[in-house]
Amino acid sequence: MHFTSESVEALVEQFTKLPTIGRKTAQRLAAYVLKMPREDVVALAKALVAVKDLVKHCPICHNVTDAVPCSICRSPRRDHTIICVVEEPNDLMALERTGEYRGVYHVLGGVISPLDGVGPDDLTVRELITRVDPSFKHVTALPAAPNGQTAEPQVAETATPYGDERPDIQEVILAVNPDVEGDTTAYYISQLLKPFNVRVTRIARGLPIGGDLEYADEATLARALEGRSAL
Amino acid sequence: MHFTSESVEALVEQFTKLPTIGRKTAQRLAAYVLKMPREDVVALAKALVAVKDLVKHCPICHNVTDAVPCSICRSPRRDHTIICVVEEPNDLMALERTGEYRGVYHVLGGVISPLDGVGPDDLTVRELITRVDPSFKHVTALPAAPNGQTAEPQVAETATPYGDERPDIQEVILAVNPDVEGDTTAYYISQLLKPFNVRVTRIARGLPIGGDLEYADEATLARALEGRSAL
Repeated sequence: MHFTSESVEALVEQFTKLPTIGRKTAQRLAAYVLKMPREDVVALAKALVAVKDLVKHCPICHNVTDAVPCSICRSPRRDHTIICVVEEPNDLMALERTGEYRGVYHVLGGVISPLDGVGPDDLTVRELITRVDPSFKHVTALPAAPNGQTAEPQVAETATPYGDERPDIQEVILAVNPDVEGDTTAYYISQLLKPFNVRVTRIARGLPIGGDLEYADEATLARALEGRSAL
Repeated sequence: MHFTSESVEALVEQFTKLPTIGRKTAQRLAAYVLKMPREDVVALAKALVAVKDLVKHCPICHNVTDAVPCSICRSPRRDHTIICVVEEPNDLMALERTGEYRGVYHVLGGVISPLDGVGPDDLTVRELITRVDPSFKHVTALPAAPNGQTAEPQVAETATPYGDERPDIQEVILAVNPDVEGDTTAYYISQLLKPFNVRVTRIARGLPIGGDLEYADEATLARALEGRSAL
């Protein structure tokens, strides 16, 4: 059964297309929109379209931004010799919230996932290596991913993001998620970066702060033991 | 910390204004919108504004509708002598989903709630009574709500929804929520309807289907016992 209003029903349909929003939540949201002042609804509608029309990808770190390059890549207060590699802009934000990191970022746009048909060439892997060594852009094909998937040979047309003042990258921190795809991607990138004189690290995996050892899963505990540090 | 894109940040702000959407969900939604095709985003934006521009309230039952009167009030297949009183359009939809009810509805637009400053005159109580007895519209002030709140005297300008073919209302079913405000509202309306030759009922409260007697709260159990029926 549907709302007696076709407009409301259409809005419910549109809401259910968004992630984490089921039909019940969509109905509740639509009922709320009905009571919202018109100008607030128009503001929401405009914000939606503005995101599609104004947001670009930073040519250096591939983060979402309105101005090119993004504020982090432009900032003179950041350490441009350390690159933290994340999967998505949301991960970047999570790291920024800690206030601990002063380097720059590189957004991959996903992880290597053969099941979903995502290979290294669907991500910004080539652009990352080019940031470490600009000569890399002349390599026309990325090596096969660890799962045996071969990347299509292609002519590299990656723009050199920096001019003459290219920073000398000292460290690449891999901040991918601690799951199978993240592990694969981290391993693949670390292998690609081996020929270059750059430190490659991965953020620690272990017990979360406030977590309970008794209820931790075996994989997390094993990793926490493995990554133990001296006091 | 915010997204490096102001547009994305603005959209997150807009999303968080919606109910049940916190900042984390808003960020996830914004990230999803970034990947949506532009035409889908425009469709969502248009659906939002269309709801504000096209949706009206049915002059008979006060449900949301694009066409006036609404499809239920227009339907010759419905029993127009039985009115089911609900708080919101969402409640109406929930009842319609059962497929059990063939009468018509009346949407109150809320419940009497002195704490929120909602009195009988803020709801469509007067319109409901007028549906039962058209002469009621000449009463200029609703009696005080049970909590002692007095309604402001006002000249009743309620349109008579039906012409000469006004149905003779036989029963008013109060399908308000089983909480304090719902109880108050149900009692208030039942008192107002007492002078008229109309059956006033309230939907049953008791154990939900699939519920467990052992874990039911005292109020529900007491009400289930009270409302027991012969087999």
